[in-house]
Amino acid sequence: MHLLLINPNTTDAMTQRMAEMSRGLLGTGARVTAATGRFGGRYVASRAAYAIAGHAALDAYAVHGADADVVVLACFGDPGLLALKEIARQPVVGMAEASCLTASALGGRFAIVTGGERWGPMLEEFVRGLGMEARLAGIATVAPTGGEIAADPDRALDLLTRASVDCVERYRADSVILAGAGLAGLAERIADRVPVPLVDSLVASVRMAEGLARIGTRKGHVGSFARTPAVETVGLAPELARLFDGSA
Amino acid sequence: MHLLLINPNTTDAMTQRMAEMSRGLLGTGARVTAATGRFGGRYVASRAAYAIAGHAALDAYAVHGADADVVVLACFGDPGLLALKEIARQPVVGMAEASCLTASALGGRFAIVTGGERWGPMLEEFVRGLGMEARLAGIATVAPTGGEIAADPDRALDLLTRASVDCVERYRADSVILAGAGLAGLAERIADRVPVPLVDSLVASVRMAEGLARIGTRKGHVGSFARTPAVETVGLAPELARLFDGSA
Amino acid sequence: MHLLLINPNTTDAMTQRMAEMSRGLLGTGARVTAATGRFGGRYVASRAAYAIAGHAALDAYAVHGADADVVVLACFGDPGLLALKEIARQPVVGMAEASCLTASALGGRFAIVTGGERWGPMLEEFVRGLGMEARLAGIATVAPTGGEIAADPDRALDLLTRASVDCVERYRADSVILAGAGLAGLAERIADRVPVPLVDSLVASVRMAEGLARIGTRKGHVGSFARTPAVETVGLAPELARLFDGSA
Amino acid sequence: MHLLLINPNTTDAMTQRMAEMSRGLLGTGARVTAATGRFGGRYVASRAAYAIAGHAALDAYAVHGADADVVVLACFGDPGLLALKEIARQPVVGMAEASCLTASALGGRFAIVTGGERWGPMLEEFVRGLGMEARLAGIATVAPTGGEIAADPDRALDLLTRASVDCVERYRADSVILAGAGLAGLAERIADRVPVPLVDSLVASVRMAEGLARIGTRKGHVGSFARTPAVETVGLAPELARLFDGSA
Amino acid sequence: MHLLLINPNTTDAMTQRMAEMSRGLLGTGARVTAATGRFGGRYVASRAAYAIAGHAALDAYAVHGADADVVVLACFGDPGLLALKEIARQPVVGMAEASCLTASALGGRFAIVTGGERWGPMLEEFVRGLGMEARLAGIATVAPTGGEIAADPDRALDLLTRASVDCVERYRADSVILAGAGLAGLAERIADRVPVPLVDSLVASVRMAEGLARIGTRKGHVGSFARTPAVETVGLAPELARLFDGSA
Amino acid sequence: MHLLLINPNTTDAMTQRMAEMSRGLLGTGARVTAATGRFGGRYVASRAAYAIAGHAALDAYAVHGADADVVVLACFGDPGLLALKEIARQPVVGMAEASCLTASALGGRFAIVTGGERWGPMLEEFVRGLGMEARLAGIATVAPTGGEIAADPDRALDLLTRASVDCVERYRADSVILAGAGLAGLAERIADRVPVPLVDSLVASVRMAEGLARIGTRKGHVGSFARTPAVETVGLAPELARLFDGSA
Repeated sequence: MHLLLINPNTTDAMTQRMAEMSRGLLGTGARVTAATGRFGGRYVASRAAYAIAGHAALDAYAVHGADADVVVLACFGDPGLLALKEIARQPVVGMAEASCLTASALGGRFAIVTGGERWGPMLEEFVRGLGMEARLAGIATVAPTGGEIAADPDRALDLLTRASVDCVERYRADSVILAGAGLAGLAERIADRVPVPLVDSLVASVRMAEGLARIGTRKGHVGSFARTPAVETVGLAPELARLFDGSA
Repeated sequence: MHLLLINPNTTDAMTQRMAEMSRGLLGTGARVTAATGRFGGRYVASRAAYAIAGHAALDAYAVHGADADVVVLACFGDPGLLALKEIARQPVVGMAEASCLTASALGGRFAIVTGGERWGPMLEEFVRGLGMEARLAGIATVAPTGGEIAADPDRALDLLTRASVDCVERYRADSVILAGAGLAGLAERIADRVPVPLVDSLVASVRMAEGLARIGTRKGHVGSFARTPAVETVGLAPELARLFDGSA
Repeated sequence: MHLLLINPNTTDAMTQRMAEMSRGLLGTGARVTAATGRFGGRYVASRAAYAIAGHAALDAYAVHGADADVVVLACFGDPGLLALKEIARQPVVGMAEASCLTASALGGRFAIVTGGERWGPMLEEFVRGLGMEARLAGIATVAPTGGEIAADPDRALDLLTRASVDCVERYRADSVILAGAGLAGLAERIADRVPVPLVDSLVASVRMAEGLARIGTRKGHVGSFARTPAVETVGLAPELARLFDGSA
Repeated sequence: MHLLLINPNTTDAMTQRMAEMSRGLLGTGARVTAATGRFGGRYVASRAAYAIAGHAALDAYAVHGADADVVVLACFGDPGLLALKEIARQPVVGMAEASCLTASALGGRFAIVTGGERWGPMLEEFVRGLGMEARLAGIATVAPTGGEIAADPDRALDLLTRASVDCVERYRADSVILAGAGLAGLAERIADRVPVPLVDSLVASVRMAEGLARIGTRKGHVGSFARTPAVETVGLAPELARLFDGSA
Repeated sequence: MHLLLINPNTTDAMTQRMAEMSRGLLGTGARVTAATGRFGGRYVASRAAYAIAGHAALDAYAVHGADADVVVLACFGDPGLLALKEIARQPVVGMAEASCLTASALGGRFAIVTGGERWGPMLEEFVRGLGMEARLAGIATVAPTGGEIAADPDRALDLLTRASVDCVERYRADSVILAGAGLAGLAERIADRVPVPLVDSLVASVRMAEGLARIGTRKGHVGSFARTPAVETVGLAPELARLFDGSA
Repeated sequence: MHLLLINPNTTDAMTQRMAEMSRGLLGTGARVTAATGRFGGRYVASRAAYAIAGHAALDAYAVHGADADVVVLACFGDPGLLALKEIARQPVVGMAEASCLTASALGGRFAIVTGGERWGPMLEEFVRGLGMEARLAGIATVAPTGGEIAADPDRALDLLTRASVDCVERYRADSVILAGAGLAGLAERIADRVPVPLVDSLVASVRMAEGLARIGTRKGHVGSFARTPAVETVGLAPELARLFDGSA
């Protein structure tokens, strides 16, 4: 199995770290390649950066997607997710999408804990777009961004624990998603201190991608996620343009 | 990994067939055990049989659940699902739940095609209980029950194809779930004739169970799915009674 | 009029107490019979006990339901309600269902106060299944179970008053349901101290049952609550099996 | 028990007919008085006539409501219902409200069949305001108004039967409400030809009013349906003005 | 352009003040006429006064509406709005409706701050009827009524500022509507002290009315807001009766 | 007033045509400038082109937005709308957003008629994201794209009329939006043949922009649409980069 991990943030170190963790999860039977957005914010923490990241994700897919079996869109909030599902030949899983679906399978309602205060309303809207607002207990954002947490995770453990416990007590969450690349790997470090299951968003998305790859569904040729007729474009990277003009 | 498949219908042949297919999917690295409901309808096709099957699923878990890593509740409609999630020490995945979550990951809205006309409103209510009604395009039930389809699958292929295509055309479904034990294995036989991805409900639930087992979340000890305080019971099978009285 | 009261908890003393109160409400022109669940938890306070109680309610109906005019399912949360509505020849009213409908008729939004902390999310899901979440202001659970409250009601009055007033102040409830068999009869004792109407769940369900019996609607022979075709069963009480095999 | 029936249509013959039927339902132990709107449309079949009927219902209550135990607002669509619930000292039941709640208690989803084509969207909005849109299967309006149906009911039977059966087949309704004063009494005449239970809207509202009167809840003194502080008015009937200025 | 402003409260001074402000907003190219309700509460602050105001709004339209190009229903909460939209030949904009639509155009979720505590649940129901509950962050009512605030606006500034800031902090509102005739003109006085955009409900409704008048859509002759067939009425003002009997 | 019209499609002729029509609507007192997307699809008719258009809209704003008073995002479906609302100093109105809000103000439920079959589900999701799904009667897409309709509008009139009438008859729409740049100007040509009001999406958005500019709300400095803290970017046009790095 070949998993392509796309990080539409433009910070390559984060991409490599996630790729490494994915390799650890999947073991030697799988190949993991990774692509970082070529333009946009160093990290996505606003609606504007999010909109650009959607384009960057498509661009990255156009360059790197040719022979993957499954794609993980590895930015919690999933910029460009539906567009990728339309244009890609493979199944595409978003980090937030996979986490919400996985947490739902644990039963009851989930909370989301993440870094960067601007993500709160954006994630609420994301979950509503996913049609799963009835399963969302609440969202807690902590002040440091995911990038800052990744840079000094030890310091963030108490903060994340408190936010998680708070979601259980205040929102009666039945599970908590530790959301975002920057928080990957921290769930197991605080699991003993949080009384409900914790979902690591990278782990959830890699495992769901693995499952989808094995299920092996084919892409539809009608419907809202089928490939669209060719259309002329201007100003795009040539690899991306080819996905539109019918030559790819 | 040890997967326990619980069929709360009381037809053992169906259970064994699903167990066999699950073994095929999981390969030699996994162990699959299976349990059939000890009481209730031969197949569940009414609200009354469904209510009894919830009890039968718990009963089967109590007898067979001790050392499994993950449980699949293998009756589309998932009788007793939330109760099992509460009482079990392992992750529990329902066949309908896993199929709806998996189909959602394919993008857009899914339809459900199944056998047995009484299932229509029951599955609508199930999906609403799951909080995913915004993702449901529609449900088509065909007249033969799942059991009848399993007995003569060749005859059902045209019928299921027509029902699936109809869901695409009438409800604009972006994917179709072939639902129920009786339809397991048929998706790949009609995939060429249906223009959107087909989800085999057994495959989806086994793959999601496998993923959850690997993620390895721990059971919460607070919240709506934590084990409950001991309570005295009467008239239950001793294994099930022990799950309530605190001795198990 | 002959009203059958089914208590799917397995505590007969509670059943007899509710039957007695029902006789007081209906007067001499009515006959009240009562049935207690033959298996399951002494009181239902978990999802697992709830699932079993659904079976127990059907079982009790099968034994006692023959000549009743109307059935009250007398466990707030109504385990097995939809199954009973399907299988019974008479109208069936659930205690929670009747209370929510009655409180709605008082205008605005209702709160639910009940004993046993595990009931909170289960009742939220119940109200959502009923399609009435827009009318629910909130739920307050107090620590003692309904059974404990029934055993020493005087002690619980202050606690229930505080919980009720809290629902008015915090959730802006326009009415409060005192929910469950254990709280039957207490509404009138604290009504002076709560500034909105109180609904006694037993009273509401008996009165709604009485009304339905008088309206005299006939059971449908199509639709989701019509009797289903015969199906073979195993392991059920003979009376219940007969409701499935077409002989009853 | 003293039931006041308010018909906010300004056609007194219809009022008297409904009062007579109510007396038949309640028997000799109850007193039924009736009031007809003093201004507004002969029958309500538009949003404008509906708005005026809300005022007329309050006016009628102000004149006749003094010593009733319970009030039925007998115009399906319930103009002025929430205002009446606020201003009245007694429980108030609307004909549409009571029918929807009663049909819900029969299980599944209900349809509404009524006369007068303009009622369709108005009733949809009413049911949504009631918070019960999840229980509404659909609405069928037939061309003759309720008044015309009442004038020649025999002629309408086939039309109403067809509309009811159509709701069952097209919307999969589990019950059908025959809605409006003009259709009162017809349910039992076509029940044999409709395969699901029929709810007569007058019967449902009288029975629910009877039940509420017996339950005997007290009016709240806080909340959205408590009486409001005195306010000066101009141009109202003196009886109605007194309900506002604090003198009544 | 000729704008008719209808104040269904029966306080003419308030009407004149709003008309004056509207003239200031629209400048010399527009004509503004104004009508005050001829019956009902001095100010609307209850469900009962609201129901009567719906009739009063229609009555005012019948007398004054003949040659207006657009109508503003200038009582926040919009009594009689849908009835006016049906009966009027011109576009009709309600003050609450226009404010909610305008605030939505600013992005995210809006809060409503208004005077008079009874308006809280009534406005929640209004926004739900408008189908915009997903955009409502919350409602804060302050104790003085709109009339009292208008009488001494300087005193109310701090109170309104606090309520607005509170909506931002507690409900995370992205904008705040200062609602009602009594608060007209105050938004600009406190805008510096509230960190999100403020919407003045009179300004929003006059501007939306101006826009609709310029768009110049024609009234439909089918659908739920087309004029209805003639119907006889009794007891109405002759101008209003003529809108029903087909002679106007 | 200075209105900036951004067309995130990359077809300049369409932009100029819309600018010309906007000048006609606003008259000599207003200045209209226009910007065409610098990269992306010639016209947006897929999820992938839509995602890129969101970036292109921000890019166009960065280059041209400096001194506008209000911005119209002139591609029905509004790619990048929320991001623009966040990053812009002025009010921003989307063509679909303004049309839905305007149609809502006409009363009842609106339908959308547009060119390009892939827009159907995308617009459903858009309206759901707007929180206005309760006001949407239905969507009809016709086969020619907006661009093709604009190229030969005479030929499309019958098709659009039929689609509009169909929305009225099938979905009971109370108004119909003729959606998209390509259909601008056609509403008045078919208004006589459609029995409900037609909304021209360009007219609606220009008028709403004009109104917002006159209302003159200030941008918030907290909340989900306030400007965000500076963040480093890579690979963006320098004008857009400056909107992120805090120098603009």
